[in-house]
Amino acid sequence: MTANDLTQMGIAAKKAAQELAQMDTTSKNNILLKLADDLEAGTTHIMAANVADMNHAAVDPKFIDRLRLTPERIADMAAGMRQVATLPDPTAVTDRGWRNEAGLQIDQRRVPLGVVGMIYEARPNVTVDAAALCLKSGNAVILRGGREALASNERLAHVLRKSLEKQGVNPDAIQLIADPSHALAEQFMHLQALDVLIPRGGANLIQRVVKTATVPVIETGAGNCHIYVDQSADLQMAIDIVVNAKVQRPSVCNSAEKLLIHESVAADYLPKIAAALRSHGVELRGDEASRKIVSDIIPATAKDWDTEYNDLIMAIKVVPDLNSAIAHINAHNTKHSEAIVTNDYAAAQTFQNLVDAACVYVNASTRFTDGFEFGFGAEIGISTQKLHARGPMGLNALTTIKYVINGNGQVRK
Amino acid sequence: MTANDLTQMGIAAKKAAQELAQMDTTSKNNILLKLADDLEAGTTHIMAANVADMNHAAVDPKFIDRLRLTPERIADMAAGMRQVATLPDPTAVTDRGWRNEAGLQIDQRRVPLGVVGMIYEARPNVTVDAAALCLKSGNAVILRGGREALASNERLAHVLRKSLEKQGVNPDAIQLIADPSHALAEQFMHLQALDVLIPRGGANLIQRVVKTATVPVIETGAGNCHIYVDQSADLQMAIDIVVNAKVQRPSVCNSAEKLLIHESVAADYLPKIAAALRSHGVELRGDEASRKIVSDIIPATAKDWDTEYNDLIMAIKVVPDLNSAIAHINAHNTKHSEAIVTNDYAAAQTFQNLVDAACVYVNASTRFTDGFEFGFGAEIGISTQKLHARGPMGLNALTTIKYVINGNGQVRK
Repeated sequence: MTANDLTQMGIAAKKAAQELAQMDTTSKNNILLKLADDLEAGTTHIMAANVADMNHAAVDPKFIDRLRLTPERIADMAAGMRQVATLPDPTAVTDRGWRNEAGLQIDQRRVPLGVVGMIYEARPNVTVDAAALCLKSGNAVILRGGREALASNERLAHVLRKSLEKQGVNPDAIQLIADPSHALAEQFMHLQALDVLIPRGGANLIQRVVKTATVPVIETGAGNCHIYVDQSADLQMAIDIVVNAKVQRPSVCNSAEKLLIHESVAADYLPKIAAALRSHGVELRGDEASRKIVSDIIPATAKDWDTEYNDLIMAIKVVPDLNSAIAHINAHNTKHSEAIVTNDYAAAQTFQNLVDAACVYVNASTRFTDGFEFGFGAEIGISTQKLHARGPMGLNALTTIKYVINGNGQVRK
Repeated sequence: MTANDLTQMGIAAKKAAQELAQMDTTSKNNILLKLADDLEAGTTHIMAANVADMNHAAVDPKFIDRLRLTPERIADMAAGMRQVATLPDPTAVTDRGWRNEAGLQIDQRRVPLGVVGMIYEARPNVTVDAAALCLKSGNAVILRGGREALASNERLAHVLRKSLEKQGVNPDAIQLIADPSHALAEQFMHLQALDVLIPRGGANLIQRVVKTATVPVIETGAGNCHIYVDQSADLQMAIDIVVNAKVQRPSVCNSAEKLLIHESVAADYLPKIAAALRSHGVELRGDEASRKIVSDIIPATAKDWDTEYNDLIMAIKVVPDLNSAIAHINAHNTKHSEAIVTNDYAAAQTFQNLVDAACVYVNASTRFTDGFEFGFGAEIGISTQKLHARGPMGLNALTTIKYVINGNGQVRK
């Protein structure tokens, strides 16, 4: 595949996007339902492609698990598509309208972004999820998945495109870059046809996209989340929240990586929280003060405070007060999700006001930062930037606005 | 000034931003009123600095006019600040709130972006405007104006910072990069402390920022706007709108650069529209078909269709139908403002649905794309991108959201 092929994909995507943008909601929903059926009907072929990918893949079991498809997982992807069909159409909305002083009627409509680029790792489910969410929101999508999942993604894209064609829909609404070279990925990051590029994956991928791309990017996913246990915290609640945020699914971005604890309760609380974490196999690292309380905590290095482990590891710091906790968080967090456990009204308010993050929790686990848990019914990623979308992104994050202005001959004085 | 000094400015700005974000609306308004008074009190010194800048400046009269300050213009800038004080505080808002299935109360609050970077040309008024809008929205601002206005900007920033200090407010809420080197400008585009960088100025400046910056950018201002005169258009309305959009203020981004006209009315309408434009000194360029109707129109080259003249020049194209007009616009526009003049209901609808631009007008001049004309009471720029803000940006464009979540011990199942 050449750079010119990529440009052609962009042109084709723009054309498909304009067609999708004019489609009514019922049509889009019916397309999604048919795509789901055809996806399930293609299970045998999809499985065969996935087996081929698996035979070439590295042996890291976490990696393998993300790459693996099963008939059940394919059925789940189809169910996800049917679920997207039931969600409200984010582009069927006029946000607001008003008449200006010159008598113009100005309406602020929600419209699709146009062409969405997705760049992600070896997770074939992202291929189907992104296709469904983009189609529902009236966007064409160009997908560039990890090389290890290439055969699976090619087959998935083939099934979806065939289904669109059969339905009389422009198949270029869903396109896959079937060349996994880095050179082409870089060209993708400069592709003018893209209205937005969304990277999904590890910190390395995201940073490469942010540094390279000249098209607008929505940064997602890096999560160095903290739980701060205040002096007024209920101990059992603190244990429950810290353990849940750390161990319930340690590989994801909304799990907690750091524990901060107020020095006045550290001697009492820390041994109990540490024991609870260790009973779930968590490796503990910590500062000097925490190691004075629980002596076999591994010394944390400066690097630990900025590291997202995505693993059963947690670093602990004893802080003298609320403001120190906030200052530490603002200096080291990724602006994703932060939590305080407290019974102090003023401390809760101060924490929520001063911590700079997409989601700031009082007395709850950071694991709730998720499009489904928030009630959005879908998720295209979790934005860690402040522009356009912040926090869990549902269908609405795939739209922009258009001012539609109706006059009767107005000119500017 | 060194890269390290710039990093220190970023750190100072972050600190100031956190203080501003906690300030109540009345305090911010009172600060703005005092800033306006002190600005007027500094008129003599500001004028002296501006005279120094003028003595060094190039001779292009358009350029000189933008650089020039007068006591009246300083009074206008002060009046603008007082006007900003009367606007609603965009961060005093909770957009919405709900309880999720786990019983968490999730509130979506409006919060300041944090640190705003502005990079602009030799227009000292942008220094004051941006400072006022950022302060009102709770953001710290780092300003980097054109080198030709350096003395003026230094004096303006000095007056504003002194005033803040006198009022007991952290003066680092308003900082100016007093070194106009390109090397430092480039470092500014990578400054991690920036939550957003907004370039204001010509297409070259904006493209340089978009290509260089690794911090989030909001593209502003490039405007290659079209007026399409449909076959059903009222001739007099078409003349009024085309003339207004072209000549009322040709140097700005929302003025029209291109005229498209339906072939079935071209022979009748074009000579009259051309005569009206020429009576205002407009140079006409055009395609073959237009030159067959008005023979002394200068031949347009391919480059004309993509050029923003910012001058009394207009290029004309005769199109066979509405769809050709829309296709031409979508291929050449800058996604800014486009207009149709028509009395045909279906044509109006199709044009507004299919043209990809921030503002799509029926029967009105594109010159209305403006924060004040829209009723926003202020304008920090006009976004031509689809992310975060699109079209005229008022105070709200300088905010983001924060999810503030209150629970009573919820953990994820």
